[in-house]
Amino acid sequence: MSSRYSAILHEIHTEILPLQHHGTVAQYIPELAKIDPNKFGMHLRTIEGNDFSVGNNEELFSIQSISKVFALAYTVSLVGETIFERVGVEPSGSSFNSLVQLEYEKGIPRNPLINAGAMVLCDVLIDKLREPKDDMLAFVRKLSGNSGITFNERVAASEKEFGFRNVAMAYFLKSFGNIHHNVDEVLDLYFHICSIEMSCKDLAASFLLFANHGKIVSTGESILNKSQTKRLNAIMQLCGFYDEAGEFSFTVGLPGKSGVGGGIVALHPHRYTVATWGPRLNAKGNSVMGMKALELLTTKLGSSIF
Amino acid sequence: MSSRYSAILHEIHTEILPLQHHGTVAQYIPELAKIDPNKFGMHLRTIEGNDFSVGNNEELFSIQSISKVFALAYTVSLVGETIFERVGVEPSGSSFNSLVQLEYEKGIPRNPLINAGAMVLCDVLIDKLREPKDDMLAFVRKLSGNSGITFNERVAASEKEFGFRNVAMAYFLKSFGNIHHNVDEVLDLYFHICSIEMSCKDLAASFLLFANHGKIVSTGESILNKSQTKRLNAIMQLCGFYDEAGEFSFTVGLPGKSGVGGGIVALHPHRYTVATWGPRLNAKGNSVMGMKALELLTTKLGSSIF
Amino acid sequence: MSSRYSAILHEIHTEILPLQHHGTVAQYIPELAKIDPNKFGMHLRTIEGNDFSVGNNEELFSIQSISKVFALAYTVSLVGETIFERVGVEPSGSSFNSLVQLEYEKGIPRNPLINAGAMVLCDVLIDKLREPKDDMLAFVRKLSGNSGITFNERVAASEKEFGFRNVAMAYFLKSFGNIHHNVDEVLDLYFHICSIEMSCKDLAASFLLFANHGKIVSTGESILNKSQTKRLNAIMQLCGFYDEAGEFSFTVGLPGKSGVGGGIVALHPHRYTVATWGPRLNAKGNSVMGMKALELLTTKLGSSIF
Amino acid sequence: MSSRYSAILHEIHTEILPLQHHGTVAQYIPELAKIDPNKFGMHLRTIEGNDFSVGNNEELFSIQSISKVFALAYTVSLVGETIFERVGVEPSGSSFNSLVQLEYEKGIPRNPLINAGAMVLCDVLIDKLREPKDDMLAFVRKLSGNSGITFNERVAASEKEFGFRNVAMAYFLKSFGNIHHNVDEVLDLYFHICSIEMSCKDLAASFLLFANHGKIVSTGESILNKSQTKRLNAIMQLCGFYDEAGEFSFTVGLPGKSGVGGGIVALHPHRYTVATWGPRLNAKGNSVMGMKALELLTTKLGSSIF
Repeated sequence: MSSRYSAILHEIHTEILPLQHHGTVAQYIPELAKIDPNKFGMHLRTIEGNDFSVGNNEELFSIQSISKVFALAYTVSLVGETIFERVGVEPSGSSFNSLVQLEYEKGIPRNPLINAGAMVLCDVLIDKLREPKDDMLAFVRKLSGNSGITFNERVAASEKEFGFRNVAMAYFLKSFGNIHHNVDEVLDLYFHICSIEMSCKDLAASFLLFANHGKIVSTGESILNKSQTKRLNAIMQLCGFYDEAGEFSFTVGLPGKSGVGGGIVALHPHRYTVATWGPRLNAKGNSVMGMKALELLTTKLGSSIF
Repeated sequence: MSSRYSAILHEIHTEILPLQHHGTVAQYIPELAKIDPNKFGMHLRTIEGNDFSVGNNEELFSIQSISKVFALAYTVSLVGETIFERVGVEPSGSSFNSLVQLEYEKGIPRNPLINAGAMVLCDVLIDKLREPKDDMLAFVRKLSGNSGITFNERVAASEKEFGFRNVAMAYFLKSFGNIHHNVDEVLDLYFHICSIEMSCKDLAASFLLFANHGKIVSTGESILNKSQTKRLNAIMQLCGFYDEAGEFSFTVGLPGKSGVGGGIVALHPHRYTVATWGPRLNAKGNSVMGMKALELLTTKLGSSIF
Repeated sequence: MSSRYSAILHEIHTEILPLQHHGTVAQYIPELAKIDPNKFGMHLRTIEGNDFSVGNNEELFSIQSISKVFALAYTVSLVGETIFERVGVEPSGSSFNSLVQLEYEKGIPRNPLINAGAMVLCDVLIDKLREPKDDMLAFVRKLSGNSGITFNERVAASEKEFGFRNVAMAYFLKSFGNIHHNVDEVLDLYFHICSIEMSCKDLAASFLLFANHGKIVSTGESILNKSQTKRLNAIMQLCGFYDEAGEFSFTVGLPGKSGVGGGIVALHPHRYTVATWGPRLNAKGNSVMGMKALELLTTKLGSSIF
Repeated sequence: MSSRYSAILHEIHTEILPLQHHGTVAQYIPELAKIDPNKFGMHLRTIEGNDFSVGNNEELFSIQSISKVFALAYTVSLVGETIFERVGVEPSGSSFNSLVQLEYEKGIPRNPLINAGAMVLCDVLIDKLREPKDDMLAFVRKLSGNSGITFNERVAASEKEFGFRNVAMAYFLKSFGNIHHNVDEVLDLYFHICSIEMSCKDLAASFLLFANHGKIVSTGESILNKSQTKRLNAIMQLCGFYDEAGEFSFTVGLPGKSGVGGGIVALHPHRYTVATWGPRLNAKGNSVMGMKALELLTTKLGSSIF
C-alpha cells in the first residue's frame, strides 16, 4: 500500500503539470499577491503515521480559510454543540447573496466555515480563552506537532487595512446581537487566525484527528468525541469549498477545506489526510492544481467516502 | 450482525413513538392531505440482501421528490455526465431565493434534486425515451424488483390542477432555453414521476444499486458505473434534503433523499440501504419521525460515512 | 404660445438627430425587431386642443407597455380603488429581483405598470367585461377619438409564442391566488393589449384626460374622478419607466409611460400631453431619442411639475 | 386664501385626533424612544412668507432622515451634478434587499435619500468643507433663518453606540471604494446630521427654497439653480418615503421627506411648504398623523402637483 501511495503521488505530480499556468493568485490583499504562483506541493499522511509527498510539501503558505476548521474544532472542544445555536450547519448556496441571507436568517450565519460563521467562532473563543491569539496558536501547534507555526503579522495587517467587506460583515452580525465582544477585538483574532502559515505536511498532520475519531494520533490526546468528529467532517463535506462544495464532493468525494492562499486539505475517515498547495485559483476561489490533484487521487485509489 | 440490525430497529421504533403527533402532513395538494398521519414504517436491506423492518414497511405511499433520484439515475444511464451541462451539482441554499437563483445562474438549476433540476431531467428523458412514462415505471420496477409499482393518477392530476408554482418554474426554465420540449409534456412526466407509490421495502430494494457500485444486487445488471454511482451519492449527500441537507449530514451522516409524502431513503455505501416513512413533516418539509429514526440508526450502529 | 410650441418641437427635432443611431431595437420578440430603427415622431396636444408635431407623428407603432395605463384607467373606472388591494403603488426597484419581490410580497405586484401588475388588471377586466378584447379596444378608441385603432395579431401571436417569462409570471401570480381566471385567457388579453398599434398623435390625444381631471376633452365625458386622475398620474410618475423612473423624473419631470416599441407619452397636468416615438432603446428599455426629446422639451419650456 | 389655509389646518387638527394613539415611536435607538408619543404639530408657510400652524409647531424634535435633503442640497451646491456619478436617482424598492442591491449595483447607492446614499454625501462634504459639522449647521441655520438650531449630542452618541447596521453599511460602501475618507469620520458627520433638532416651523422655513427655484425667500440668496431645484424635488417625490414613496405620491401628491423622529416636510412648488410632526410611526417608518394630515391638506386644497 505504501509504495502505491508513493507511486500515485508521483503520477499525479506529472499529470497536473499542464495546469501550472491556469488560474490566478488571490489579489484581494496585496500581501497574498506576492507569492510565486507556480509552486505546488502535496502531502499525504496515513492513519498509521506514514508520510508521502511530492513538490513543495514543506514550504509555508497562508492557510487563510482552512483556519476556520481549527477555530471550529477548538470552539466545539470548549463549548460543545451549543455553538450551533449561534451558527447553522447548512451550505450557503451562491455567495452573491451572503449578506441578504444573513438578513433573512436574522444574523445566524449559515455555517461556521463562511466568514460570518468564523467571526462568531472568534467571538466565542474570546469569551473562553485567556489569550485568544496565543491559545489558538498553541492549539494548532499541538494538532500539527510543529511548535514553529506562527502568524504572519504582515498578512494580518494587510487584511485589517483592506478587508472592509469583512468589517462590514462583523458589524452586521453585531447589529443582530450575534457578536458580543468588541468588533475590533473579534476581527483582530479573525485576521490573525487567517494569517497562520503552515506547510502541506503541517496540514496533513494537524487534520489527522478528524480521520481518527477526534484523537491526536501521535499523542493519543482526545480533542473531540466521536460524534463531534463525524459532525465536523459532515460540515466540511457540505460547506468546505465556498460555492464549489458540490463540485468537490462530486469529483473528489472527501470532506475537506480550501483557502484562498491556495491550500486544500481533505481526509478519508479512518484512512488518511492529504494536503495540497498551488497558489493559482479558479473562478470560485479554489486551487486549480489542488482540485485536480485530489480528483486524481481518489480516482486512482478507487475510493472515496461514497 | 443480523440480530443487531433487528434489535436496533425495534429500539428505534419504541424511541420515536413520542414524536408520533409532531409535525404536519403536506397540504399543498389536496390528494396528499388525505393520508393517515400516524403511520410509521422502516425497512433496512443489507448489501448481502437481508431485510429488517418495523411498522408499516410494506404500505404504499407517494414517493414525491424521492423520484428525482430515479430520474437522475435513469438520465445518467442514458446520456452520462453530459446532463451536468444543463444542471449543476451545488446545494441550493435556502429555498426563499430559488427563482432569483435560477435567474442569476441563467436558467441552470443548482442541482438535479430540486424541482427545476428534475424538470430538466424530464426534458432529457422525453428526448431519449419512446414512452417516457411507461419506460420510467419499467426502470423503477426493475431497480426495486417489484413489477406492481405504478403511478397514482389522482395525485398526478391533483399536482397538475394545483401546482401553479411548478408550472411557473417550468416556463421560467423554458424562457432560458433549458427546456426544449413542450412545457405541458414535461410537466406531465414530472407530475407522474412524483406520484409513484412505493413502500419502504420497495425503496430500500431500489436504492441498493447506489450502495453497490451501480449494479442491481439481485440481477447483477449494471445501471451506472462506479464513478457515476459515487457522484450520485455525493449529490444526494449535498442536495437531498432541501434546506436541511446540512442537518441530515450532521446528524445522520448518510447520503439520501426525502419527499413531502413523508418518505426518506438513505444508504451506507457497500453496507445497506434504509427507508423510513412517517407523513408528518417538520417546517423544512422532511418527515419528523424519519429524520429521528435515521439519526438513531447511525448513532446506535456507531457508523456513518464520516 | 402656440408658435412657441411649434418652434421648440422643430428645435428638438434638429437637436436629437445625432442620436439617431444610438441604442437597439427590442429583440425579444421577432415581430418587434422588424421595425425601421431610424424613425422618429413627436406630437404635443394642449389642453385647449391644439396640435404640434414633427417627424413620423402619425405612423403606427406597437404601444406595448403604454397599454398598461389604458388597462389601469379602465379598471379604476370599473372597480375604483379596490384594485389596490390586489396590486401596490410602489416603484419596483431594479428589475433583477422582480420574481423574488413578488415572492416576498406574497403575490401582490408592486404596481400596476409592471407586467405582473398588468396581468392582475387583465384578470379583473375579464371579470367585469363581456368581450374583454373588444371592450378594451372600444375604450382606447373612445379616449383617442380614433375608431381605426386595433390589435396587431401577429405581434400578439409572437408574444404568445416566445413570451415564456410572462407565462411563468402569470402562473406564479396564480400560485398566490392573485389570478382568478384561466391563465391562458388572462395572457390572451394581456398580449393583445400590448399589441395595440397607435401613432404619437393617437397617444397624445388619448392621454389628454389625465391632464384634464379625468374628462375626455373633446366630448366632456368623465372617465375618472379628480382624485383618481391625480393618483394615476402619481403612479405614472413613480412607476412608468421601469428601472429609470427616477432618471425620467429627474431629467424630464413629468408623469408618463414608455413601451419597448419605442413610444413614450407624458403629460403636464392642466397643460398638455406629449408623445414621442423612436424604436432604438437604451439599456433600460426606454427610447433613446424619446428620452432626450422630452428632456429638451421641459428644459426649453422651463417648466415641469417640479 | 390665508383664512382658507388657517381654517383647513384647524379642520385637519380635529380630524386626525382619533389617530393619536395609532402607531409606535421609533425604538431602535434608546434616545429617540424617550419622546412624548402624543405630540402633534403642523406648520405651513406660503411662498409669500405667510405662516399658518396648529399644535406643537414650535417644539423641537429630531429631524433624522429629513437631514438627508439638507446634505443633498449642500452637496449639490458645492459639487453640482457630479455627485450623481457616486449615487443614483432611482427609488430603492423594498428595504429588505438594500444590501444585496448595493452589491448588485457595485457600491452605488440607489439614491441620496437612503442611508447609504447619505453616507456618500457625507464623504463628499468632508472633502469640501473645512469644518464639516459646523459648516453643515451653518447651512441649515441659513436656510431656516434660525441661528439656534443645533445637534443633539446625546442622540448622535446613541446612534454611534447602537447603530451597528449603519457602521456595516459604511464599511460595505468603503469596500466598493465609494467612501474615500475614514469610516469613523464619515459616520461621525452622518450621525450628527441626523441628530439635528428643529421644529415644524423651522422645517417649513428651511424647505421654502425648494418651492422657490432654489432661492432663499427671505434673503434672496440663490443656493441651487432652477434645474437643480427641480431635480431635488423629483428625487424627494420618488425616494423621500422609504418603502412608501408611492403611497405618499398617491395620497398626498407632493415631493417631501420623512424621518423616524416623526417629522415630515413637503412642498408645492411655487406655492408653499408644510411640515408635520407626530412621533408615532406606521409599519413603514412614517408618522401616522403626519401622513394623514398631509393627505387631508391636499384633498381639502383640491391641489397637488398632479
